[in-house]
Amino acid sequence: MNDEPTSEILDATYHALCKHGYAALTLQHIADESAMSKASIHYYYDSKNELFVALLDFLYDRYTTQIDSTARDSPREHLRSLLEVLLTDEEDTPGTEFRTAMLEVTAQAPYDDKIRDRLVEFGDYLFERIRQIIAAGIDAGEFAESVAPSRIAEAFTTLIVGANTRQVAVEYSTDRLSETITSHIETDLLIRTPVEGAQ
Amino acid sequence: MNDEPTSEILDATYHALCKHGYAALTLQHIADESAMSKASIHYYYDSKNELFVALLDFLYDRYTTQIDSTARDSPREHLRSLLEVLLTDEEDTPGTEFRTAMLEVTAQAPYDDKIRDRLVEFGDYLFERIRQIIAAGIDAGEFAESVAPSRIAEAFTTLIVGANTRQVAVEYSTDRLSETITSHIETDLLIRTPVEGAQ
Repeated sequence: MNDEPTSEILDATYHALCKHGYAALTLQHIADESAMSKASIHYYYDSKNELFVALLDFLYDRYTTQIDSTARDSPREHLRSLLEVLLTDEEDTPGTEFRTAMLEVTAQAPYDDKIRDRLVEFGDYLFERIRQIIAAGIDAGEFAESVAPSRIAEAFTTLIVGANTRQVAVEYSTDRLSETITSHIETDLLIRTPVEGAQ
Repeated sequence: MNDEPTSEILDATYHALCKHGYAALTLQHIADESAMSKASIHYYYDSKNELFVALLDFLYDRYTTQIDSTARDSPREHLRSLLEVLLTDEEDTPGTEFRTAMLEVTAQAPYDDKIRDRLVEFGDYLFERIRQIIAAGIDAGEFAESVAPSRIAEAFTTLIVGANTRQVAVEYSTDRLSETITSHIETDLLIRTPVEGAQ
């Protein structure tokens, strides 16, 4: 229970979303997860859509905090801890139920500009953080100067979205992908002697 | 119009799906796209769900044919043409409307084993084809022996899913990603002189 009614509603929405998924979710499900009535919830949020947009803003803060918490002194370690957090199935990260609901919300983005705008923000934040880590790693002499920060950030952001989509839709395990990315970082990003005769 | 009523229904379902999306789709929308009545469609398919599973089987055939059509003599060229077809926005590939509907279908997979099974088949087919191309490229002396076919196939399959998800949800352009992958293939997969002092 929270002091602010809106915090309580968003908390209840989060739990109801995990339990019932997005498509099937009703205001009653949300009321069931809180001490508030449907009428009280409706007083604060006009529609299910408005409530979801507020939930995405709330989740965005949590997401950026989670990403920022992976900071390490070495950019190389920072990149690894970030990818570990985003590609793990551990309990302290959003679980399968939440990811399942988020994929439903993602699939609604083409029909709803406000949802789309929020998802763009999630992607932009992740992209920018990865880009900065790679750039810092080049400055620190950990990553090769030939590594292009934007390109790697682009590929990793897209890989993470793909891994989450597959995890939800086809019960894909991210373990092998984690290994592949780690090996890619060690082999292709870390600084090395210039290659003779490379194409 | 097709000779087989089931082909006509699946064709109509495909067009209705592109036009209305998955969630909003009704049997009437499908009937509107064909010369058949709702009752006739219902005679062949008991439920919307059964119709979708049949549609996914139909699309699977089209997908494998599309993937197989990218074959080239050189594995390196084969890999590039495959990625180009799967990451392009050109008209002869499934358009945005179709991808939007497919993301909705994907988001339903956790709630429906039959849909999930079909999506697993799509992913498995793509993974296996990429793995074979990389393995053939190593045999042919185009790709370095240090390249692990399964790992690259895993990463590329996940990248393609991620690119399609982002394309639909946040209007992501795959152009930059295509460039990044091409550069990755040229720089990191193609055979080169062994690296001295690499970690």
